[in-house]
Amino acid sequence: MTTHRAPLEQSLAHGTATAAARARLGVLAHPTLDSWQSAPDNRWVFRHVEELLPSAVVSRMSAGHAPIEPGVLRDVQGGSRRLEELYTDGILVERGGRVVGEWYAEGFGPDRTHLLMSVSKSLCGIVVGALADEGLIDLSRRAEVYVPVLAGSAYGDATVQQLMDMVAAADYSEDYTDPRAEVQAHDRAARWRTPHDDDADDTFAFLARLTRSRDHGLRFQYCSAVTDTLGWIIEVVTGQRYADVLSERLWSRLGAEHDARVSVDRGGCALANGGVSCTLRDLARVGRLMLGGGEIDGRRIVSEEWVRQTLAGGDPALAADSPNRAVFPEVSYRNQWWATGNERGNVYAIGIHGEYLWLDPLTDTLVAKFSTQPAPVGTASLRAHAELFADLVAAAG
Amino acid sequence: MTTHRAPLEQSLAHGTATAAARARLGVLAHPTLDSWQSAPDNRWVFRHVEELLPSAVVSRMSAGHAPIEPGVLRDVQGGSRRLEELYTDGILVERGGRVVGEWYAEGFGPDRTHLLMSVSKSLCGIVVGALADEGLIDLSRRAEVYVPVLAGSAYGDATVQQLMDMVAAADYSEDYTDPRAEVQAHDRAARWRTPHDDDADDTFAFLARLTRSRDHGLRFQYCSAVTDTLGWIIEVVTGQRYADVLSERLWSRLGAEHDARVSVDRGGCALANGGVSCTLRDLARVGRLMLGGGEIDGRRIVSEEWVRQTLAGGDPALAADSPNRAVFPEVSYRNQWWATGNERGNVYAIGIHGEYLWLDPLTDTLVAKFSTQPAPVGTASLRAHAELFADLVAAAG
Repeated sequence: MTTHRAPLEQSLAHGTATAAARARLGVLAHPTLDSWQSAPDNRWVFRHVEELLPSAVVSRMSAGHAPIEPGVLRDVQGGSRRLEELYTDGILVERGGRVVGEWYAEGFGPDRTHLLMSVSKSLCGIVVGALADEGLIDLSRRAEVYVPVLAGSAYGDATVQQLMDMVAAADYSEDYTDPRAEVQAHDRAARWRTPHDDDADDTFAFLARLTRSRDHGLRFQYCSAVTDTLGWIIEVVTGQRYADVLSERLWSRLGAEHDARVSVDRGGCALANGGVSCTLRDLARVGRLMLGGGEIDGRRIVSEEWVRQTLAGGDPALAADSPNRAVFPEVSYRNQWWATGNERGNVYAIGIHGEYLWLDPLTDTLVAKFSTQPAPVGTASLRAHAELFADLVAAAG
Repeated sequence: MTTHRAPLEQSLAHGTATAAARARLGVLAHPTLDSWQSAPDNRWVFRHVEELLPSAVVSRMSAGHAPIEPGVLRDVQGGSRRLEELYTDGILVERGGRVVGEWYAEGFGPDRTHLLMSVSKSLCGIVVGALADEGLIDLSRRAEVYVPVLAGSAYGDATVQQLMDMVAAADYSEDYTDPRAEVQAHDRAARWRTPHDDDADDTFAFLARLTRSRDHGLRFQYCSAVTDTLGWIIEVVTGQRYADVLSERLWSRLGAEHDARVSVDRGGCALANGGVSCTLRDLARVGRLMLGGGEIDGRRIVSEEWVRQTLAGGDPALAADSPNRAVFPEVSYRNQWWATGNERGNVYAIGIHGEYLWLDPLTDTLVAKFSTQPAPVGTASLRAHAELFADLVAAAG
């Protein structure tokens, strides 16, 4: 346990959602810029200083990674032009456990990490699945059972499974480019953007303020706040911080080559919805885990049944409003993963600006891709990526 | 190269010390909370998001480290009590390349990093030494030759060697607990503390504002601003960011087990003076490098002559005002390392709140220690540490 312990009463006395969140974990309010150098805060912060202060990696430059080979990327028509047009930072094709194509933009490489944006959500889904397998989370119970301070807010009376499938209903616009949209207020609460005076102090407080827009379960509503709520539930049921649970339940069992990171806000809330960074090869291992039915290198991480459900996708009828229908007419969302509903059963994780983990179960092939497209989302980009991945899967055959 | 390039004119147009610093490197002004998600900034930030957003490590929990053995720590009288009294987070004793004692506090361990505070300075000193060996830095030249924007400020007309030995003179109080002291304004510029309205925007700007207090070279003045100035010079002569230089010149050649990190401020300035975090075992490797005369595992990192000079110490007469004289009457400072001047020739790196790397050349023994003492400094603590290290060195024999 690496939590920052203090008397429960001390935290509860703050009376905020954050304090309540911390109190559930038995942890003190998050250290501040003006407290961290002094006892008792320094004991925790000196061991976790990167959680308070932005920090650059001083790489040990571990040797031993295989030479980068374009492999099948060479065999795809217009390959390098298409990678460039899609602002690719790195791409990896893996079939049956073997890397068959890998390419990195200048200044990036197999030992460097890259922000996953909402691909992070799909990692969180796996952790919830693993905790549900163990009985620590009951997917049919409401969020407020685990996080009482959410009672009366948008997600308090949504079940964990409704959150997993994004069929909970909140007054929340996910229009990334609209300054009035809740997704930007969410960013500001998390200090991903400069906050306004009336913004929530942190993500815990932001989530507790959200209001419900209609009954849950009626429609798919893609909403980043859902995943941070799942992260909060994970912290409560494990009594551990999200980064540590992600390490214990997923990263340490994957055979990852490198540590991952997750951004945390000044309330100590890890941004489960979009804040994870990792290497491309380690992301590919997450895809291998899914194609392996929840097992990798003989280690079971999540149940085969949970993976089967996830790969089967959700109910396309609920996603009638999704703009992604223009590319995948039968698209759905299940357990924090997208399902195309196409004849190949392609399932994927996606993050804004072009982060992807694409699964092709028919040929046991996956594609992982990091990008920095100028626009966060777009139908043309989604279609171009789907075509690229289909071509790469065919070339890998 | 991982710098964030943009036209030189664009940076120069900002007209600040920071812009000048960045311009010398050909890099754009550091991305902000409101620019990083958009092109073109996102290309750099998605690969370095931890430099803008505080982030928690998601450990892969690499296996394979040797079991922790107290070893010689068991043999020292009152050992565990003394470790506790000195707020020890971890301690390691190494003799002739072999770990002979190692202990970690609960919640800490060999795979976890800890803030070094001013032990960071001694790492920076090695990098300057290595660059001087190669002729990239001329230690006899003035700082303003490398960083023209420093002309007229405190350190502009100090030589690099004067900076290395902390005999440059600035109006700067290093009284950590005094809110009016410059060291706290330095912290605020670096966003290690909440800034005031009239504080410098970042460390580059802070350094350029400092004024000279007297002629250089007359007295030892321990001053954290010196080391950040050295970091700035390092960036200019290499055309690389400090974290990358520290990686290329030191960390990647040490045989380090883990990446290190260094905190960076919103101007992109790495806190060379105190912002490095690493594992205890990796810090011990820095000590091994010094005891090995600048070579480790057959890799030369810095010249034997530079190490010899450093271990020989500086001029004790210049340090007549140092409070450390109460413990070491012949104390001096040389090349960003402290020399006790005692009969054993002990040399050490030290950081506030109890971070240490202690060298005993006579027995080829070193002690690395991480702590979180409530007080930043204190004569009693320094004496107790010196006694503990002497006892450990004797026990290791």
